Amino acid sequence: MVRWEPGARERLQEAALDLYATKGFEETTVVEIAQAAGLTERTFFRYFADKREVIFAGQELFQKAFIDGVAGAPKDATPLETVASAVISAADFFGDDRRAYSRQRSTVISATPELQERELLKMAALATAIAAALDERGVTEPAATLSAESGVTVFRLAFGQWIAPGSTRSLIDLEREIFAELGALSAPTKS
Amino acid sequence: MVRWEPGARERLQEAALDLYATKGFEETTVVEIAQAAGLTERTFFRYFADKREVIFAGQELFQKAFIDGVAGAPKDATPLETVASAVISAADFFGDDRRAYSRQRSTVISATPELQERELLKMAALATAIAAALDERGVTEPAATLSAESGVTVFRLAFGQWIAPGSTRSLIDLEREIFAELGALSAPTKS
Repeated sequence: MVRWEPGARERLQEAALDLYATKGFEETTVVEIAQAAGLTERTFFRYFADKREVIFAGQELFQKAFIDGVAGAPKDATPLETVASAVISAADFFGDDRRAYSRQRSTVISATPELQERELLKMAALATAIAAALDERGVTEPAATLSAESGVTVFRLAFGQWIAPGSTRSLIDLEREIFAELGALSAPTKS
Repeated sequence: MVRWEPGARERLQEAALDLYATKGFEETTVVEIAQAAGLTERTFFRYFADKREVIFAGQELFQKAFIDGVAGAPKDATPLETVASAVISAADFFGDDRRAYSRQRSTVISATPELQERELLKMAALATAIAAALDERGVTEPAATLSAESGVTVFRLAFGQWIAPGSTRSLIDLEREIFAELGALSAPTKS
Protein backbone atom coordinates (compact mmCIF):
# COMPACT_ATOMS: atom_id res chain seq x y z
CA MET A 1 0.00 0.00 0.00
CA VAL A 2 1.15 3.51 -0.78
CA ARG A 3 1.82 5.50 2.34
CA TRP A 4 0.67 9.11 2.31
CA GLU A 5 3.53 11.49 3.05
CA PRO A 6 2.30 14.78 4.48
CA GLY A 7 3.63 17.70 2.45
CA ALA A 8 5.77 15.42 0.31
CA ARG A 9 5.32 17.48 -2.84
CA GLU A 10 6.40 20.71 -1.15
CA ARG A 11 9.33 19.03 0.61
CA LEU A 12 10.55 17.60 -2.70
CA GLN A 13 10.19 20.96 -4.45
CA GLU A 14 12.10 22.78 -1.75
CA ALA A 15 14.84 20.16 -1.60
CA ALA A 16 15.18 20.11 -5.39
CA LEU A 17 15.41 23.88 -5.69
CA ASP A 18 18.04 24.06 -2.93
CA LEU A 19 20.13 21.42 -4.68
CA TYR A 20 19.71 23.01 -8.13
CA ALA A 21 20.82 26.35 -6.66
CA THR A 22 23.89 24.97 -4.89
CA LYS A 23 25.06 22.03 -7.07
CA GLY A 24 23.50 23.04 -10.37
CA PHE A 25 20.51 21.51 -12.18
CA GLU A 26 22.50 19.13 -14.40
CA GLU A 27 24.55 17.77 -11.51
CA THR A 28 21.63 17.01 -9.21
CA THR A 29 20.08 13.51 -9.25
CA VAL A 30 16.58 12.45 -8.28
CA VAL A 31 18.07 10.18 -5.59
CA GLU A 32 19.75 13.19 -3.99
CA ILE A 33 16.53 15.21 -4.06
CA ALA A 34 14.56 12.39 -2.44
CA GLN A 35 17.23 11.89 0.24
CA ALA A 36 17.40 15.59 1.05
CA ALA A 37 13.61 15.57 1.50
CA GLY A 38 13.76 12.43 3.65
CA LEU A 39 11.74 10.48 1.07
CA THR A 40 12.32 7.71 -1.45
CA GLU A 41 13.03 7.96 -5.17
CA ARG A 42 9.74 6.16 -5.71
CA THR A 43 7.87 8.88 -3.86
CA PHE A 44 9.56 11.49 -6.06
CA PHE A 45 8.23 9.83 -9.19
CA ARG A 46 4.74 9.66 -7.69
CA TYR A 47 4.70 13.48 -7.86
CA PHE A 48 6.99 14.42 -10.75
CA ALA A 49 7.82 12.82 -14.11
CA ASP A 50 11.43 14.06 -14.00
CA LYS A 51 13.60 16.63 -12.30
CA ARG A 52 12.69 19.34 -14.79
CA GLU A 53 9.01 18.99 -13.94
CA VAL A 54 9.68 19.90 -10.30
CA ILE A 55 10.25 23.43 -11.57
CA PHE A 56 7.31 23.53 -13.96
CA ALA A 57 4.67 21.72 -11.93
CA GLY A 58 1.42 23.67 -11.63
CA GLN A 59 1.63 25.18 -15.11
CA GLU A 60 -2.04 24.31 -15.80
CA LEU A 61 -3.23 26.15 -12.67
CA PHE A 62 -0.99 29.10 -13.53
CA GLN A 63 -2.45 29.32 -17.04
CA LYS A 64 -5.99 28.80 -15.76
CA ALA A 65 -5.64 31.85 -13.50
CA PHE A 66 -5.15 34.02 -16.61
CA ILE A 67 -7.88 32.33 -18.65
CA ASP A 68 -10.39 32.71 -15.81
CA GLY A 69 -9.37 36.36 -15.63
CA VAL A 70 -10.18 36.85 -19.32
CA ALA A 71 -13.56 35.18 -18.88
CA GLY A 72 -14.32 37.30 -15.80
CA ALA A 73 -13.42 40.70 -17.30
CA PRO A 74 -16.21 43.27 -17.75
CA LYS A 75 -18.13 42.72 -20.98
CA ASP A 76 -17.50 46.20 -22.33
CA ALA A 77 -13.73 46.06 -21.77
CA THR A 78 -11.47 46.52 -24.84
CA PRO A 79 -9.20 43.55 -25.72
CA LEU A 80 -6.23 45.15 -23.98
CA GLU A 81 -8.30 46.08 -20.91
CA THR A 82 -9.53 42.48 -20.78
CA VAL A 83 -5.98 41.17 -20.79
CA ALA A 84 -4.87 43.72 -18.19
CA SER A 85 -7.72 42.62 -15.95
CA ALA A 86 -6.72 38.97 -16.42
CA VAL A 87 -3.03 39.57 -15.71
CA ILE A 88 -3.84 41.57 -12.60
CA SER A 89 -6.31 39.00 -11.27
CA ALA A 90 -3.79 36.20 -11.89
CA ALA A 91 -1.33 38.06 -9.65
CA ASP A 92 -3.20 36.52 -6.69
CA PHE A 93 -1.26 33.42 -7.65
CA PHE A 94 1.92 35.15 -6.50
CA GLY A 95 1.48 36.39 -2.96
CA ASP A 96 4.39 37.75 -0.98
CA ASP A 97 4.81 34.36 0.75
CA ARG A 98 5.79 32.98 -2.65
CA ARG A 99 8.41 35.56 -3.51
CA ALA A 100 11.43 33.77 -2.00
CA TYR A 101 10.55 30.54 -3.81
CA SER A 102 9.98 32.36 -7.13
CA ARG A 103 13.26 34.20 -6.72
CA GLN A 104 15.24 31.00 -6.17
CA ARG A 105 13.40 29.27 -9.03
CA SER A 106 14.28 32.11 -11.37
CA THR A 107 17.98 32.00 -10.39
CA VAL A 108 18.07 28.29 -11.21
CA ILE A 109 16.35 28.83 -14.56
CA SER A 110 18.72 31.66 -15.54
CA ALA A 111 21.68 29.35 -14.92
CA THR A 112 20.38 26.52 -17.12
CA PRO A 113 19.76 27.02 -20.89
CA GLU A 114 17.48 23.96 -21.06
CA LEU A 115 15.23 25.44 -18.36
CA GLN A 116 15.32 28.88 -19.97
CA GLU A 117 13.96 27.38 -23.19
CA ARG A 118 11.25 25.57 -21.27
CA GLU A 119 10.26 28.81 -19.54
CA LEU A 120 10.10 30.69 -22.86
CA LEU A 121 7.87 27.97 -24.31
CA LYS A 122 5.65 28.17 -21.23
CA MET A 123 5.21 31.93 -21.77
CA ALA A 124 4.49 31.39 -25.49
CA ALA A 125 1.86 28.79 -24.58
CA LEU A 126 0.32 31.24 -22.11
CA ALA A 127 0.02 33.94 -24.80
CA THR A 128 -1.58 31.46 -27.19
CA ALA A 129 -4.08 30.38 -24.52
CA ILE A 130 -4.99 34.00 -23.69
CA ALA A 131 -5.48 34.81 -27.39
CA ALA A 132 -7.79 31.77 -27.68
CA ALA A 133 -9.78 32.95 -24.63
CA LEU A 134 -10.13 36.40 -26.24
CA ASP A 135 -11.30 34.76 -29.44
CA GLU A 136 -14.07 33.08 -27.42
CA ARG A 137 -15.16 36.54 -26.29
CA GLY A 138 -15.45 37.56 -29.93
CA VAL A 139 -12.15 39.45 -30.22
CA THR A 140 -10.79 39.08 -33.77
CA GLU A 141 -7.21 38.92 -35.01
CA PRO A 142 -4.80 40.67 -34.96
CA ALA A 143 -6.20 42.36 -31.82
CA ALA A 144 -6.42 39.07 -29.90
CA THR A 145 -2.78 38.06 -30.37
CA LEU A 146 -1.43 41.61 -30.05
CA SER A 147 -3.25 42.05 -26.72
CA ALA A 148 -2.37 38.58 -25.42
CA GLU A 149 1.33 38.96 -26.24
CA SER A 150 1.43 42.44 -24.70
CA GLY A 151 -0.15 41.10 -21.52
CA VAL A 152 2.39 38.29 -21.23
CA THR A 153 5.26 40.73 -21.79
CA VAL A 154 3.91 43.01 -19.05
CA PHE A 155 3.59 40.00 -16.74
CA ARG A 156 7.18 38.89 -17.48
CA LEU A 157 8.61 42.36 -16.88
CA ALA A 158 6.61 42.90 -13.68
CA PHE A 159 7.54 39.45 -12.44
CA GLY A 160 11.23 40.19 -13.09
CA GLN A 161 10.94 43.34 -10.97
CA TRP A 162 8.95 41.51 -8.29
CA ILE A 163 11.71 38.95 -7.73
CA ALA A 164 14.60 41.42 -8.12
CA PRO A 165 16.93 41.55 -5.08
CA GLY A 166 15.50 43.84 -2.41
CA SER A 167 12.17 44.27 -4.16
CA THR A 168 9.24 44.69 -1.77
CA ARG A 169 6.43 46.03 -4.02
CA SER A 170 3.51 43.76 -4.83
CA LEU A 171 3.24 42.13 -8.23
CA ILE A 172 -0.09 43.87 -8.86
CA ASP A 173 1.44 47.32 -8.30
CA LEU A 174 4.28 46.55 -10.69
CA GLU A 175 1.89 45.21 -13.33
CA ARG A 176 -0.31 48.32 -13.11
CA GLU A 177 2.73 50.54 -13.58
CA ILE A 178 3.98 48.63 -16.63
CA PHE A 179 0.51 48.52 -18.22
CA ALA A 180 0.50 52.32 -17.91
CA GLU A 181 3.87 52.45 -19.69
CA LEU A 182 2.48 50.18 -22.40
CA GLY A 183 -0.42 52.58 -22.93
CA ALA A 184 2.00 55.50 -23.17
CA LEU A 185 4.08 53.75 -25.87
CA SER A 186 1.50 54.38 -28.57
CA ALA A 187 1.03 58.01 -27.59
CA PRO A 188 1.90 60.47 -30.37
CA THR A 189 5.45 61.86 -30.33
CA LYS A 190 5.84 64.91 -28.12
CA SER A 191 6.58 68.01 -30.16
CA MET B 1 40.70 19.10 -52.70
CA VAL B 2 37.17 20.32 -52.01
CA ARG B 3 35.25 20.88 -55.22
CA TRP B 4 33.06 23.95 -55.35
CA GLU B 5 29.48 23.05 -56.21
CA PRO B 6 27.62 25.95 -57.81
CA GLY B 7 24.42 26.69 -55.89
CA ALA B 8 24.92 23.67 -53.62
CA ARG B 9 23.45 25.40 -50.57
CA GLU B 10 20.27 26.40 -52.38
CA ARG B 11 19.90 22.99 -54.03
CA LEU B 12 20.24 21.28 -50.65
CA GLN B 13 17.72 23.62 -49.04
CA GLU B 14 15.18 23.07 -51.79
CA ALA B 15 15.64 19.31 -51.79
CA ALA B 16 15.39 19.16 -48.00
CA LEU B 17 12.22 21.23 -47.85
CA ASP B 18 10.57 19.13 -50.57
CA LEU B 19 11.40 15.95 -48.67
CA TYR B 20 10.28 17.37 -45.31
CA ALA B 21 6.99 18.41 -46.89
CA THR B 22 6.31 15.06 -48.56
CA LYS B 23 7.90 12.46 -46.25
CA GLY B 24 7.94 14.44 -43.00
CA PHE B 25 10.91 15.98 -41.19
CA GLU B 26 11.56 13.05 -38.84
CA GLU B 27 11.49 10.49 -41.64
CA THR B 28 13.92 12.29 -43.94
CA THR B 29 17.63 11.44 -43.79
CA VAL B 30 20.61 13.59 -44.76
CA VAL B 31 21.61 10.95 -47.33
CA GLU B 32 18.23 11.34 -49.03
CA ILE B 33 18.55 15.13 -49.09
CA ALA B 34 22.02 14.95 -50.62
CA GLN B 35 20.89 12.41 -53.22
CA ALA B 36 17.85 14.47 -54.20
CA ALA B 37 20.13 17.48 -54.69
CA GLY B 38 22.61 15.40 -56.71
CA LEU B 39 25.31 15.93 -54.07
CA THR B 40 27.13 13.90 -51.42
CA GLU B 41 26.41 13.62 -47.71
CA ARG B 42 29.81 15.20 -47.15
CA THR B 43 28.80 18.25 -49.16
CA PHE B 44 25.65 18.54 -47.04
CA PHE B 45 27.69 18.73 -43.85
CA ARG B 46 29.94 21.37 -45.39
CA TYR B 47 26.91 23.68 -45.38
CA PHE B 48 24.71 22.53 -42.51
CA ALA B 49 25.41 21.04 -39.07
CA ASP B 50 22.27 18.87 -39.20
CA LYS B 51 18.94 18.60 -40.97
CA ARG B 52 17.25 21.04 -38.61
CA GLU B 53 19.76 23.75 -39.49
CA VAL B 54 18.72 23.62 -43.16
CA ILE B 55 15.52 25.33 -42.06
CA PHE B 56 17.14 27.84 -39.71
CA ALA B 57 20.22 28.79 -41.72
CA GLY B 58 20.60 32.54 -42.17
CA GLN B 59 19.19 33.41 -38.74
CA GLU B 60 22.07 35.85 -38.08
CA LEU B 61 21.39 37.78 -41.31
CA PHE B 62 17.67 37.81 -40.51
CA GLN B 63 18.29 39.23 -37.04
CA LYS B 64 20.85 41.70 -38.37
CA ALA B 65 18.25 43.18 -40.73
CA PHE B 66 16.15 44.20 -37.70
CA ILE B 67 19.10 45.44 -35.65
CA ASP B 68 20.36 47.57 -38.56
CA GLY B 69 16.83 48.93 -38.85
CA VAL B 70 16.85 50.01 -35.20
CA ALA B 71 20.22 51.71 -35.64
CA GLY B 72 19.03 53.46 -38.81
CA ALA B 73 15.73 54.81 -37.43
CA PRO B 74 15.33 58.62 -37.14
CA LYS B 75 16.87 59.97 -33.93
CA ASP B 76 13.67 61.57 -32.69
CA ALA B 77 11.54 58.44 -33.17
CA THR B 78 9.77 57.02 -30.09
CA PRO B 79 10.78 53.47 -29.04
CA LEU B 80 7.74 51.99 -30.79
CA GLU B 81 8.30 54.09 -33.94
CA THR B 82 11.92 52.91 -33.95
CA VAL B 83 10.84 49.28 -33.82
CA ALA B 84 8.19 49.82 -36.50
CA SER B 85 10.81 51.37 -38.74
CA ALA B 86 13.13 48.39 -38.13
CA VAL B 87 10.45 45.77 -38.77
CA ILE B 88 9.40 47.51 -41.97
CA SER B 89 12.96 47.89 -43.26
CA ALA B 90 13.68 44.22 -42.48
CA ALA B 91 10.76 43.28 -44.74
CA ASP B 92 13.17 43.75 -47.68
CA PHE B 93 14.47 40.37 -46.56
CA PHE B 94 11.19 38.81 -47.71
CA GLY B 95 10.56 39.79 -51.31
CA ASP B 96 7.76 38.19 -53.29
CA ASP B 97 10.25 35.76 -54.87
CA ARG B 98 10.70 34.26 -51.41
CA ARG B 99 7.05 33.75 -50.60
CA ALA B 100 6.72 30.20 -52.00
CA TYR B 101 9.80 29.05 -50.08
CA SER B 102 8.61 30.71 -46.85
CA ARG B 103 5.19 29.17 -47.26
CA GLN B 104 6.59 25.66 -47.66
CA ARG B 105 9.01 26.19 -44.76
CA SER B 106 6.15 27.28 -42.53
CA THR B 107 4.06 24.22 -43.44
CA VAL B 108 6.96 21.95 -42.48
CA ILE B 109 7.48 23.78 -39.18
CA SER B 110 3.77 23.60 -38.28
CA ALA B 111 3.86 19.82 -38.75
CA THR B 112 6.86 19.27 -36.46
CA PRO B 113 6.74 20.21 -32.72
CA GLU B 114 10.56 20.20 -32.47
CA LEU B 115 10.78 22.79 -35.26
CA GLN B 116 7.93 24.85 -33.80
CA GLU B 117 9.87 25.15 -30.55
CA ARG B 118 12.99 26.16 -32.43
CA GLU B 119 11.03 28.85 -34.30
CA LEU B 120 9.55 30.22 -31.06
CA LEU B 121 13.02 30.43 -29.55
CA LYS B 122 14.26 32.21 -32.68
CA MET B 123 11.52 34.83 -32.28
CA ALA B 124 12.29 35.23 -28.57
CA ALA B 125 15.98 35.73 -29.42
CA LEU B 126 14.99 38.35 -32.02
CA ALA B 127 12.96 40.31 -29.44
CA THR B 128 15.86 40.20 -26.97
CA ALA B 129 18.27 41.45 -29.64
CA ILE B 130 15.95 44.31 -30.64
CA ALA B 131 15.51 45.32 -26.97
CA ALA B 132 19.32 45.37 -26.61
CA ALA B 133 19.62 47.55 -29.74
CA LEU B 134 17.05 49.96 -28.27
CA ASP B 135 18.99 50.02 -25.03
CA GLU B 136 22.05 51.16 -27.04
CA ARG B 137 19.96 54.07 -28.32
CA GLY B 138 19.23 55.05 -24.72
CA VAL B 139 15.74 53.55 -24.44
CA THR B 140 15.15 52.35 -20.87
CA GLU B 141 13.08 49.45 -19.55
CA PRO B 142 10.26 48.57 -19.63
CA ALA B 143 9.81 50.58 -22.86
CA ALA B 144 12.61 48.72 -24.66
CA THR B 145 11.23 45.22 -24.07
CA LEU B 146 7.58 46.26 -24.51
CA SER B 147 8.39 47.84 -27.89
CA ALA B 148 10.66 45.01 -29.04
CA GLU B 149 8.13 42.31 -28.16
CA SER B 150 5.31 44.26 -29.83
CA GLY B 151 7.40 44.60 -32.98
CA VAL B 152 8.13 40.88 -33.12
CA THR B 153 4.44 40.07 -32.60
CA VAL B 154 3.49 42.40 -35.45
CA PHE B 155 6.13 40.76 -37.64
CA ARG B 156 4.85 37.25 -36.79
CA LEU B 157 1.24 38.16 -37.51
CA ALA B 158 2.06 39.97 -40.76
CA PHE B 159 4.28 37.10 -41.84
CA GLY B 160 1.47 34.62 -41.15
CA GLN B 161 -0.85 36.65 -43.40
CA TRP B 162 1.86 37.05 -46.05
CA ILE B 163 2.29 33.29 -46.46
CA ALA B 164 -1.42 32.47 -46.12
CA PRO B 165 -2.87 30.56 -49.12
CA GLY B 166 -3.80 32.97 -51.90
CA SER B 167 -2.18 35.97 -50.22
CA THR B 168 -0.72 38.47 -52.68
CA ARG B 169 -0.16 41.60 -50.54
CA SER B 170 3.40 42.63 -49.69
CA LEU B 171 4.81 41.99 -46.23
CA ILE B 172 5.39 45.73 -45.74
CA ASP B 173 1.73 46.53 -46.40
CA LEU B 174 0.59 43.90 -43.93
CA GLU B 175 3.03 45.12 -41.29
CA ARG B 176 1.87 48.72 -41.66
CA GLU B 177 -1.73 47.63 -41.22
CA ILE B 178 -1.01 45.62 -38.08
CA PHE B 179 1.12 48.39 -36.55
CA ALA B 180 -1.90 50.65 -37.01
CA GLU B 181 -4.08 48.10 -35.18
CA LEU B 182 -1.49 47.96 -32.41
CA GLY B 183 -1.67 51.74 -32.02
CA ALA B 184 -5.47 51.56 -31.84
CA LEU B 185 -5.35 48.95 -29.04
CA SER B 186 -4.37 51.49 -26.44
CA ALA B 187 -6.97 54.00 -27.56
CA PRO B 188 -9.53 54.88 -24.87
CA THR B 189 -12.79 52.89 -24.91
CA LYS B 190 -15.39 54.33 -27.26
CA SER B 191 -18.34 55.71 -25.31
